[in-house]
Amino acid sequence: MKFAACIEYDGSPFYGWQRLSHGPTVQGNVEQALSRVANEAVSVVCAGRTDSGVHGIGQVIHFETSATRPLRGWLFGTNAHLPDGVSMRWIQPVADDFHARFSARARRYRYIILNRQARPALLHNRVYWQHGELDVAAMHEAAQALLGEQDFSSFRAAGCQARHAMREMSDITVSREGDFIYVDLRANAFLHHMVRNIVGSLLKVGAGERPQAWMGELLALRDRTQAGMTAPAAGLYFVHVDYPAHFGLPTTYQLPCYYT
Amino acid sequence: MKFAACIEYDGSPFYGWQRLSHGPTVQGNVEQALSRVANEAVSVVCAGRTDSGVHGIGQVIHFETSATRPLRGWLFGTNAHLPDGVSMRWIQPVADDFHARFSARARRYRYIILNRQARPALLHNRVYWQHGELDVAAMHEAAQALLGEQDFSSFRAAGCQARHAMREMSDITVSREGDFIYVDLRANAFLHHMVRNIVGSLLKVGAGERPQAWMGELLALRDRTQAGMTAPAAGLYFVHVDYPAHFGLPTTYQLPCYYT
Repeated sequence: MKFAACIEYDGSPFYGWQRLSHGPTVQGNVEQALSRVANEAVSVVCAGRTDSGVHGIGQVIHFETSATRPLRGWLFGTNAHLPDGVSMRWIQPVADDFHARFSARARRYRYIILNRQARPALLHNRVYWQHGELDVAAMHEAAQALLGEQDFSSFRAAGCQARHAMREMSDITVSREGDFIYVDLRANAFLHHMVRNIVGSLLKVGAGERPQAWMGELLALRDRTQAGMTAPAAGLYFVHVDYPAHFGLPTTYQLPCYYT
Repeated sequence: MKFAACIEYDGSPFYGWQRLSHGPTVQGNVEQALSRVANEAVSVVCAGRTDSGVHGIGQVIHFETSATRPLRGWLFGTNAHLPDGVSMRWIQPVADDFHARFSARARRYRYIILNRQARPALLHNRVYWQHGELDVAAMHEAAQALLGEQDFSSFRAAGCQARHAMREMSDITVSREGDFIYVDLRANAFLHHMVRNIVGSLLKVGAGERPQAWMGELLALRDRTQAGMTAPAAGLYFVHVDYPAHFGLPTTYQLPCYYT
Protein backbone atom coordinates (compact mmCIF):
# COMPACT_ATOMS: atom_id res chain seq x y z
CA MET A 1 0.00 0.00 0.00
CA LYS A 2 1.37 3.42 -0.99
CA PHE A 3 0.58 6.66 0.84
CA ALA A 4 1.26 10.33 0.18
CA ALA A 5 1.38 12.71 3.14
CA CYS A 6 2.09 16.37 3.82
CA ILE A 7 4.56 17.42 6.51
CA GLU A 8 4.80 20.81 8.24
CA TYR A 9 7.92 21.62 10.26
CA ASP A 10 9.79 24.31 12.10
CA GLY A 11 13.28 24.06 10.63
CA SER A 12 15.10 25.67 13.55
CA PRO A 13 15.53 22.65 15.87
CA PHE A 14 16.59 20.24 13.11
CA TYR A 15 19.66 19.44 11.06
CA GLY A 16 17.58 19.76 7.91
CA TRP A 17 15.30 17.22 6.25
CA GLN A 18 17.59 14.32 5.43
CA ARG A 19 18.13 11.47 7.88
CA LEU A 20 21.54 11.66 9.61
CA SER A 21 23.27 9.55 12.19
CA HIS A 22 24.65 12.49 14.16
CA GLY A 23 21.67 14.78 14.80
CA PRO A 24 17.88 15.20 14.76
CA THR A 25 16.34 15.61 11.31
CA VAL A 26 12.78 15.91 10.07
CA GLN A 27 12.99 12.75 7.96
CA GLY A 28 14.42 10.79 10.87
CA ASN A 29 11.56 11.83 13.13
CA VAL A 30 8.89 11.20 10.51
CA GLU A 31 10.23 7.71 9.75
CA GLN A 32 10.45 6.86 13.43
CA ALA A 33 6.85 8.00 14.06
CA LEU A 34 5.47 6.17 11.00
CA SER A 35 7.38 3.02 11.93
CA ARG A 36 5.76 3.03 15.35
CA VAL A 37 2.28 3.43 13.89
CA ALA A 38 2.94 0.78 11.19
CA ASN A 39 4.72 -1.50 13.63
CA GLU A 40 7.32 -2.12 10.93
CA ALA A 41 10.23 -0.13 9.47
CA VAL A 42 9.02 2.65 7.18
CA SER A 43 11.25 4.81 5.01
CA VAL A 44 9.98 7.87 3.20
CA VAL A 45 10.83 9.78 0.01
CA CYS A 46 10.31 13.56 -0.02
CA ALA A 47 9.55 16.05 -2.80
CA GLY A 48 12.51 18.26 -1.92
CA ARG A 49 15.18 18.09 0.78
CA THR A 50 15.53 21.23 2.83
CA ASP A 51 18.59 22.48 4.70
CA SER A 52 19.04 23.03 8.39
CA GLY A 53 16.82 25.91 9.56
CA VAL A 54 14.54 25.93 6.49
CA HIS A 55 10.84 25.57 7.33
CA GLY A 56 8.27 23.35 5.67
CA ILE A 57 4.56 23.99 5.29
CA GLY A 58 3.78 21.75 2.34
CA GLN A 59 6.55 19.16 2.11
CA VAL A 60 5.16 16.02 0.47
CA ILE A 61 6.36 12.48 1.11
CA HIS A 62 5.43 9.00 -0.03
CA PHE A 63 6.01 5.65 1.64
CA GLU A 64 4.97 2.05 1.27
CA THR A 65 3.79 -0.21 4.04
CA SER A 66 2.02 -3.51 4.59
CA ALA A 67 0.24 -2.08 7.65
CA THR A 68 -3.49 -1.37 7.46
CA ARG A 69 -4.79 1.52 9.54
CA PRO A 70 -7.72 3.93 9.15
CA LEU A 71 -6.52 7.27 7.71
CA ARG A 72 -7.40 8.99 10.96
CA GLY A 73 -5.25 6.43 12.77
CA TRP A 74 -2.26 7.24 10.57
CA LEU A 75 -2.74 10.99 11.07
CA PHE A 76 -3.35 11.13 14.81
CA GLY A 77 -1.00 8.23 15.57
CA THR A 78 1.90 9.73 13.63
CA ASN A 79 1.37 13.18 15.17
CA ALA A 80 1.29 11.63 18.64
CA HIS A 81 4.80 10.24 18.01
CA LEU A 82 6.28 13.35 16.35
CA PRO A 83 8.11 16.09 18.30
CA ASP A 84 6.46 19.51 18.74
CA GLY A 85 8.17 21.03 15.70
CA VAL A 86 6.85 18.50 13.16
CA SER A 87 3.27 17.67 12.18
CA MET A 88 1.58 15.57 9.49
CA ARG A 89 -1.11 17.74 7.88
CA TRP A 90 -2.83 15.14 5.74
CA ILE A 91 -2.33 11.62 4.47
CA GLN A 92 -4.07 9.69 1.72
CA PRO A 93 -3.60 6.51 -0.32
CA VAL A 94 -2.01 7.15 -3.68
CA ALA A 95 -1.47 5.26 -6.96
CA ASP A 96 1.53 2.93 -7.16
CA ASP A 97 3.22 5.05 -9.83
CA PHE A 98 3.22 8.17 -7.62
CA HIS A 99 6.66 9.35 -6.54
CA ALA A 100 6.93 12.37 -4.21
CA ARG A 101 10.02 13.61 -6.01
CA PHE A 102 9.74 12.42 -9.62
CA SER A 103 6.01 13.02 -10.06
CA ALA A 104 6.32 16.66 -8.97
CA ARG A 105 5.68 19.23 -11.70
CA ALA A 106 6.70 22.26 -9.67
CA ARG A 107 7.79 23.42 -6.22
CA ARG A 108 6.82 26.67 -4.53
CA TYR A 109 8.91 28.50 -1.94
CA ARG A 110 8.41 31.73 -0.01
CA TYR A 111 11.25 33.74 1.51
CA ILE A 112 10.30 36.25 4.23
CA ILE A 113 12.36 39.36 4.98
CA LEU A 114 11.44 41.51 7.99
CA ASN A 115 12.36 45.01 6.87
CA ARG A 116 12.12 47.35 9.87
CA GLN A 117 14.41 49.05 12.36
CA ALA A 118 13.67 46.71 15.27
CA ARG A 119 14.85 43.13 15.05
CA PRO A 120 12.24 40.35 15.36
CA ALA A 121 11.21 38.91 18.73
CA LEU A 122 8.17 36.71 18.17
CA LEU A 123 9.56 35.85 14.72
CA HIS A 124 13.09 35.00 15.77
CA ASN A 125 14.25 32.08 13.56
CA ARG A 126 11.17 32.59 11.32
CA VAL A 127 12.28 35.52 9.16
CA TYR A 128 15.45 37.19 7.92
CA TRP A 129 15.78 40.68 9.38
CA GLN A 130 17.26 43.59 7.45
CA HIS A 131 16.87 47.06 8.98
CA GLY A 132 17.91 49.21 6.03
CA GLU A 133 14.96 50.00 3.75
CA LEU A 134 14.81 47.88 0.61
CA ASP A 135 13.44 48.92 -2.80
CA VAL A 136 10.90 46.18 -3.42
CA ALA A 137 9.90 47.39 -6.88
CA ALA A 138 13.53 47.20 -8.01
CA MET A 139 13.87 43.72 -6.54
CA HIS A 140 10.77 42.53 -8.34
CA GLU A 141 11.83 44.01 -11.68
CA ALA A 142 15.32 42.54 -11.35
CA ALA A 143 13.95 39.11 -10.50
CA GLN A 144 11.98 38.87 -13.76
CA ALA A 145 15.24 38.18 -15.61
CA LEU A 146 15.22 34.73 -13.97
CA LEU A 147 11.96 33.60 -15.59
CA GLY A 148 11.93 30.76 -18.10
CA GLU A 149 14.24 27.80 -18.67
CA GLN A 150 17.74 28.91 -17.75
CA ASP A 151 21.10 27.74 -16.50
CA PHE A 152 21.17 28.67 -12.80
CA SER A 153 24.87 27.85 -12.19
CA SER A 154 25.39 31.35 -10.70
CA PHE A 155 22.92 30.53 -7.91
CA ARG A 156 24.00 26.95 -7.23
CA ALA A 157 25.81 25.81 -4.08
CA ALA A 158 29.35 24.49 -4.58
CA GLY A 159 28.34 21.08 -3.26
CA CYS A 160 25.15 20.77 -5.34
CA GLN A 161 24.80 17.23 -6.67
CA ALA A 162 22.32 17.86 -9.50
CA ARG A 163 23.46 16.59 -12.91
CA HIS A 164 22.89 19.93 -14.59
CA ALA A 165 21.85 23.47 -13.67
CA MET A 166 18.94 23.97 -16.09
CA ARG A 167 15.74 24.83 -14.26
CA GLU A 168 12.50 26.41 -15.40
CA MET A 169 11.34 29.31 -13.25
CA SER A 170 7.65 29.92 -13.90
CA ASP A 171 7.00 32.60 -11.30
CA ILE A 172 9.05 34.93 -9.15
CA THR A 173 7.35 37.77 -7.32
CA VAL A 174 8.71 40.23 -4.76
CA SER A 175 6.07 42.11 -2.77
CA ARG A 176 5.77 44.13 0.42
CA GLU A 177 3.08 44.01 3.10
CA GLY A 178 3.87 46.44 5.88
CA ASP A 179 7.27 45.56 7.35
CA PHE A 180 7.41 42.25 5.49
CA ILE A 181 8.89 41.53 2.09
CA TYR A 182 7.85 38.27 0.45
CA VAL A 183 9.80 36.59 -2.32
CA ASP A 184 7.59 33.92 -3.91
CA LEU A 185 9.12 31.48 -6.35
CA ARG A 186 7.80 28.62 -8.44
CA ALA A 187 10.03 26.40 -10.59
CA ASN A 188 9.98 22.83 -11.83
CA ALA A 189 12.83 22.13 -9.40
CA PHE A 190 15.47 24.01 -7.45
CA LEU A 191 19.23 23.54 -7.12
CA HIS A 192 20.90 23.38 -3.72
CA HIS A 193 20.77 26.86 -2.08
CA MET A 194 19.16 28.28 -5.25
CA VAL A 195 16.40 30.27 -3.52
CA ARG A 196 18.71 31.59 -0.82
CA ASN A 197 21.37 32.59 -3.36
CA ILE A 198 18.79 34.37 -5.52
CA VAL A 199 17.45 36.22 -2.46
CA GLY A 200 20.99 37.14 -1.39
CA SER A 201 21.52 38.82 -4.75
CA LEU A 202 18.10 40.47 -4.78
CA LEU A 203 18.97 42.01 -1.40
CA LYS A 204 21.90 43.80 -3.05
CA VAL A 205 19.57 45.20 -5.71
CA GLY A 206 17.05 46.23 -3.06
CA ALA A 207 19.74 48.03 -1.07
CA GLY A 208 20.83 49.93 -4.20
CA GLU A 209 24.26 48.29 -4.27
CA ARG A 210 23.63 46.76 -7.69
CA PRO A 211 21.41 47.85 -10.64
CA GLN A 212 18.30 45.94 -11.66
CA ALA A 213 20.05 44.54 -14.74
CA TRP A 214 22.56 42.77 -12.52
CA MET A 215 20.38 39.70 -11.96
CA GLY A 216 20.29 38.93 -15.69
CA GLU A 217 24.03 39.57 -15.95
CA LEU A 218 24.71 37.21 -13.05
CA LEU A 219 22.63 34.50 -14.68
CA ALA A 220 24.58 34.85 -17.93
CA LEU A 221 27.93 34.57 -16.11
CA ARG A 222 27.15 31.07 -14.78
CA ASP A 223 29.59 31.76 -11.98
CA ARG A 224 28.55 31.37 -8.35
CA THR A 225 31.42 33.54 -7.08
CA GLN A 226 29.86 36.66 -8.65
CA ALA A 227 26.45 36.54 -6.92
CA GLY A 228 25.37 37.79 -3.49
CA MET A 229 25.51 35.96 -0.18
CA THR A 230 23.43 32.90 0.61
CA ALA A 231 20.49 34.42 2.50
CA PRO A 232 19.92 32.85 5.94
CA ALA A 233 17.84 29.68 6.17
CA ALA A 234 15.43 31.09 8.79
CA GLY A 235 13.49 33.14 6.21
CA LEU A 236 12.82 30.24 3.84
CA TYR A 237 9.60 28.20 3.65
CA PHE A 238 8.91 25.22 1.39
CA VAL A 239 5.29 25.98 0.58
CA HIS A 240 3.80 23.56 -1.91
CA VAL A 241 4.41 20.85 -4.49
CA ASP A 242 2.33 20.70 -7.69
CA TYR A 243 1.50 17.20 -8.98
CA PRO A 244 -0.53 16.09 -12.00
CA ALA A 245 -4.24 16.27 -11.17
CA HIS A 246 -4.87 12.56 -11.69
CA PHE A 247 -3.06 11.71 -8.45
CA GLY A 248 -5.85 13.53 -6.61
CA LEU A 249 -3.67 15.34 -4.07
CA PRO A 250 -4.70 18.68 -2.51
CA THR A 251 -4.15 21.54 -4.95
CA THR A 252 -4.78 24.46 -2.63
CA TYR A 253 -1.98 25.69 -0.42
CA GLN A 254 -1.23 28.29 2.21
CA LEU A 255 1.46 30.94 2.30
CA PRO A 256 3.14 31.84 5.57
CA CYS A 257 2.60 35.43 6.66
CA TYR A 258 2.84 37.39 9.88
CA TYR A 259 0.83 40.41 10.99
CA THR A 260 -1.82 42.23 9.00
CA MET B 1 13.25 62.85 30.60
CA LYS B 2 10.27 60.54 30.02
CA PHE B 3 10.06 58.00 27.20
CA ALA B 4 7.33 55.75 25.82
CA ALA B 5 8.34 52.57 24.01
CA CYS B 6 6.69 49.57 22.40
CA ILE B 7 7.80 46.03 23.26
CA GLU B 8 7.24 42.86 21.22
CA TYR B 9 7.82 39.49 22.86
CA ASP B 10 7.42 35.76 22.50
CA GLY B 11 5.72 34.77 25.75
CA SER B 12 6.84 31.15 25.72
CA PRO B 13 10.31 31.44 27.28
CA PHE B 14 9.26 33.88 30.03
CA TYR B 15 7.45 33.77 33.37
CA GLY B 16 5.14 36.51 32.15
CA TRP B 17 5.67 40.26 32.07
CA GLN B 18 6.20 41.20 35.70
CA ARG B 19 9.68 41.25 37.24
CA LEU B 20 10.32 38.26 39.52
CA SER B 21 13.28 37.12 41.56
CA HIS B 22 12.92 33.44 40.64
CA GLY B 23 12.71 33.36 36.84
CA PRO B 24 13.15 35.27 33.56
CA THR B 25 10.45 37.83 32.79
CA VAL B 26 9.95 40.33 30.00
CA GLN B 27 10.00 43.33 32.36
CA GLY B 28 13.19 42.09 34.03
CA ASN B 29 14.95 41.79 30.68
CA VAL B 30 13.71 45.16 29.42
CA GLU B 31 14.81 46.96 32.59
CA GLN B 32 18.21 45.29 32.50
CA ALA B 33 18.75 46.27 28.85
CA LEU B 34 17.58 49.87 29.37
CA SER B 35 19.73 50.20 32.48
CA ARG B 36 22.79 49.19 30.48
CA VAL B 37 22.04 51.72 27.75
CA ALA B 38 21.25 54.46 30.30
CA ASN B 39 24.17 53.50 32.52
CA GLU B 40 21.84 53.92 35.49
CA ALA B 41 19.02 51.91 37.02
CA VAL B 42 15.83 52.16 34.95
CA SER B 43 12.44 50.80 35.98
CA VAL B 44 9.48 50.65 33.62
CA VAL B 45 5.69 50.79 33.89
CA CYS B 46 3.64 48.81 31.36
CA ALA B 47 0.14 49.26 29.92
CA GLY B 48 -0.95 45.77 30.90
CA ARG B 49 0.80 42.86 32.59
CA THR B 50 0.62 39.59 30.69
CA ASP B 51 0.85 36.08 32.10
CA SER B 52 3.42 33.41 31.40
CA GLY B 53 3.15 32.25 27.79
CA VAL B 54 1.10 35.24 26.55
CA HIS B 55 2.67 37.07 23.60
CA GLY B 56 3.08 40.80 23.10
CA ILE B 57 3.13 42.71 19.85
CA GLY B 58 2.16 46.15 21.05
CA GLN B 59 2.90 46.30 24.77
CA VAL B 60 3.63 49.93 25.73
CA ILE B 61 5.91 51.06 28.56
CA HIS B 62 7.12 54.34 29.97
CA PHE B 63 10.25 55.11 31.95
CA GLU B 64 12.17 58.10 33.22
CA THR B 65 15.89 58.59 32.97
CA SER B 66 18.53 61.30 33.28
CA ALA B 67 20.52 59.71 30.44
CA THR B 68 20.68 61.48 27.07
CA ARG B 69 20.97 59.29 23.98
CA PRO B 70 19.86 59.68 20.37
CA LEU B 71 16.57 57.78 19.76
CA ARG B 72 18.38 55.40 17.44
CA GLY B 73 20.88 54.74 20.24
CA TRP B 74 18.09 53.81 22.63
CA LEU B 75 16.46 51.50 20.06
CA PHE B 76 19.51 49.67 18.74
CA GLY B 77 21.31 49.70 22.08
CA THR B 78 18.36 48.24 23.98
CA ASN B 79 17.76 45.58 21.32
CA ALA B 80 21.43 44.62 21.43
CA HIS B 81 21.05 43.85 25.15
CA LEU B 82 17.68 42.05 24.94
CA PRO B 83 17.37 38.26 24.49
CA ASP B 84 16.10 36.86 21.16
CA GLY B 85 12.48 36.66 22.30
CA VAL B 86 12.12 40.37 23.16
CA SER B 87 12.47 43.45 20.95
CA MET B 88 11.82 47.17 21.30
CA ARG B 89 9.80 48.26 18.25
CA TRP B 90 9.85 52.00 18.74
CA ILE B 91 10.74 54.59 21.36
CA GLN B 92 9.93 58.27 21.60
CA PRO B 93 10.00 61.09 24.15
CA VAL B 94 6.64 61.68 25.76
CA ALA B 95 4.96 64.37 27.90
CA ASP B 96 5.55 64.21 31.67
CA ASP B 97 1.89 63.46 32.36
CA PHE B 98 1.90 60.33 30.19
CA HIS B 99 1.46 57.07 32.07
CA ALA B 100 1.57 53.77 30.14
CA ARG B 101 -1.16 52.28 32.30
CA PHE B 102 -3.34 55.17 33.47
CA SER B 103 -3.32 57.16 30.21
CA ALA B 104 -4.55 54.15 28.23
CA ARG B 105 -8.08 54.48 26.82
CA ALA B 106 -8.34 50.91 25.54
CA ARG B 107 -6.42 47.67 25.06
CA ARG B 108 -6.72 45.28 22.13
CA TYR B 109 -6.06 41.55 22.27
CA ARG B 110 -6.24 38.78 19.68
CA TYR B 111 -6.68 35.12 20.54
CA ILE B 112 -5.73 32.60 17.82
CA ILE B 113 -7.26 29.12 17.59
CA LEU B 114 -5.88 26.66 15.05
CA ASN B 115 -8.94 24.63 14.06
CA ARG B 116 -7.78 21.68 11.95
CA GLN B 117 -7.17 17.95 12.34
CA ALA B 118 -3.37 18.17 12.47
CA ARG B 119 -1.76 19.81 15.46
CA PRO B 120 0.55 22.80 14.85
CA ALA B 121 4.26 22.37 14.14
CA LEU B 122 5.62 25.73 13.04
CA LEU B 123 3.08 27.40 15.33
CA HIS B 124 3.74 25.34 18.43
CA ASN B 125 3.38 27.70 21.44
CA ARG B 126 1.87 30.38 19.14
CA VAL B 127 -1.72 29.17 18.83
CA TYR B 128 -4.27 27.07 20.70
CA TRP B 129 -5.11 23.95 18.73
CA GLN B 130 -8.58 22.42 18.66
CA HIS B 131 -9.23 19.68 16.10
CA GLY B 132 -13.03 19.43 16.34
CA GLU B 133 -14.74 21.87 13.98
CA LEU B 134 -16.04 25.01 15.68
CA ASP B 135 -19.10 27.05 14.69
CA VAL B 136 -17.57 30.50 14.29
CA ALA B 137 -20.87 32.27 13.51
CA ALA B 138 -22.36 30.96 16.77
CA MET B 139 -19.27 32.07 18.70
CA HIS B 140 -19.46 35.55 17.22
CA GLU B 141 -23.17 35.92 17.93
CA ALA B 142 -22.76 34.67 21.49
CA ALA B 143 -19.88 37.06 22.12
CA GLN B 144 -21.98 40.13 21.32
CA ALA B 145 -23.69 39.75 24.73
CA LEU B 146 -20.43 40.94 26.29
CA LEU B 147 -20.49 44.37 24.63
CA GLY B 148 -20.91 47.51 26.70
CA GLU B 149 -20.13 48.34 30.31
CA GLN B 150 -20.68 45.19 32.32
CA ASP B 151 -19.66 43.29 35.44
CA PHE B 152 -17.21 40.63 34.24
CA SER B 153 -16.98 38.70 37.53
CA SER B 154 -17.83 35.46 35.71
CA PHE B 155 -14.67 35.78 33.62
CA ARG B 156 -12.30 36.98 36.34
CA ALA B 157 -9.48 34.88 37.81
CA ALA B 158 -9.81 33.98 41.49
CA GLY B 159 -6.63 35.89 42.33
CA CYS B 160 -7.52 39.03 40.34
CA GLN B 161 -6.53 42.13 42.31
CA ALA B 162 -8.68 44.72 40.53
CA ARG B 163 -10.92 46.77 42.84
CA HIS B 164 -14.05 45.99 40.85
CA ALA B 165 -15.12 43.90 37.85
CA MET B 166 -16.79 46.58 35.73
CA ARG B 167 -15.20 46.83 32.30
CA GLU B 168 -16.39 48.34 29.05
CA MET B 169 -16.06 46.02 26.06
CA SER B 170 -16.24 48.10 22.88
CA ASP B 171 -15.53 45.37 20.33
CA ILE B 172 -15.50 41.59 20.25
CA THR B 173 -15.31 39.80 16.92
CA VAL B 174 -14.90 36.11 16.13
CA SER B 175 -13.85 35.33 12.55
CA ARG B 176 -12.37 32.48 10.54
CA GLU B 177 -9.63 32.57 7.90
CA GLY B 178 -8.93 29.08 6.62
CA ASP B 179 -7.88 26.90 9.55
CA PHE B 180 -7.54 29.87 11.89
CA ILE B 181 -10.15 31.37 14.17
CA TYR B 182 -9.43 34.86 15.48
CA VAL B 183 -11.09 36.34 18.55
CA ASP B 184 -10.45 40.10 18.58
CA LEU B 185 -11.32 42.08 21.67
CA ARG B 186 -11.14 45.74 22.63
CA ALA B 187 -12.04 47.03 26.10
CA ASN B 188 -11.03 49.94 28.31
CA ALA B 189 -9.21 47.41 30.49
CA PHE B 190 -9.21 43.68 31.18
CA LEU B 191 -9.39 41.67 34.39
CA HIS B 192 -6.89 38.93 35.15
CA HIS B 193 -7.50 35.96 32.76
CA MET B 194 -10.54 37.77 31.32
CA VAL B 195 -9.75 37.15 27.65
CA ARG B 196 -8.75 33.53 28.22
CA ASN B 197 -11.88 32.85 30.30
CA ILE B 198 -14.12 34.43 27.67
CA VAL B 199 -12.44 32.35 24.94
CA GLY B 200 -12.77 29.18 27.05
CA SER B 201 -16.54 29.74 27.23
CA LEU B 202 -16.82 30.68 23.55
CA LEU B 203 -15.13 27.36 22.71
CA LYS B 204 -18.04 25.54 24.40
CA VAL B 205 -20.52 27.49 22.28
CA GLY B 206 -18.47 26.81 19.14
CA ALA B 207 -18.43 23.08 19.91
CA GLY B 208 -22.21 23.07 20.35
CA GLU B 209 -22.00 22.17 24.04
CA ARG B 210 -23.76 25.38 25.05
CA PRO B 211 -26.33 27.60 23.27
CA GLN B 212 -25.47 31.08 22.05
CA ALA B 213 -27.50 32.68 24.85
CA TRP B 214 -25.20 31.08 27.42
CA MET B 215 -22.60 33.88 27.25
CA GLY B 216 -25.16 36.48 28.37
CA GLU B 217 -26.44 34.14 31.06
CA LEU B 218 -22.90 33.57 32.37
CA LEU B 219 -22.29 37.31 32.51
CA ALA B 220 -25.47 37.81 34.55
CA LEU B 221 -24.48 35.09 37.03
CA ARG B 222 -21.29 36.93 38.11
CA ASP B 223 -19.89 33.55 39.12
CA ARG B 224 -16.55 32.34 37.76
CA THR B 225 -17.30 28.72 38.61
CA GLN B 226 -20.02 28.55 35.92
CA ALA B 227 -17.91 29.57 32.90
CA GLY B 228 -15.66 27.49 30.65
CA MET B 229 -11.99 26.69 31.14
CA THR B 230 -9.23 29.28 31.00
CA ALA B 231 -8.02 28.96 27.39
CA PRO B 232 -4.26 28.31 27.12
CA ALA B 233 -1.88 31.28 27.17
CA ALA B 234 -0.13 30.30 23.92
CA GLY B 235 -2.99 31.60 21.74
CA LEU B 236 -3.13 35.07 23.29
CA TYR B 237 -1.52 38.23 21.87
CA PHE B 238 -1.52 41.69 23.44
CA VAL B 239 -1.93 43.71 20.26
CA HIS B 240 -2.28 47.42 20.91
CA VAL B 241 -2.94 50.17 23.43
CA ASP B 242 -5.05 53.21 22.49
CA TYR B 243 -3.95 56.53 24.02
CA PRO B 244 -5.37 60.06 23.62
CA ALA B 245 -4.10 61.56 20.36
CA HIS B 246 -2.31 64.48 22.04
CA PHE B 247 0.43 62.15 23.31
CA GLY B 248 1.42 61.59 19.70
CA LEU B 249 2.03 57.84 19.92
CA PRO B 250 1.60 55.52 16.90
CA THR B 251 -2.09 54.83 16.26
CA THR B 252 -1.74 52.09 13.64
CA TYR B 253 -1.20 48.54 14.76
CA GLN B 254 -0.68 45.06 13.40
CA LEU B 255 -2.61 41.89 14.07
CA PRO B 256 -0.81 38.56 14.25
CA CYS B 257 -1.86 36.07 11.59
CA TYR B 258 -0.43 32.94 10.03
CA TYR B 259 -0.83 31.61 6.50
CA THR B 260 -2.95 33.13 3.74
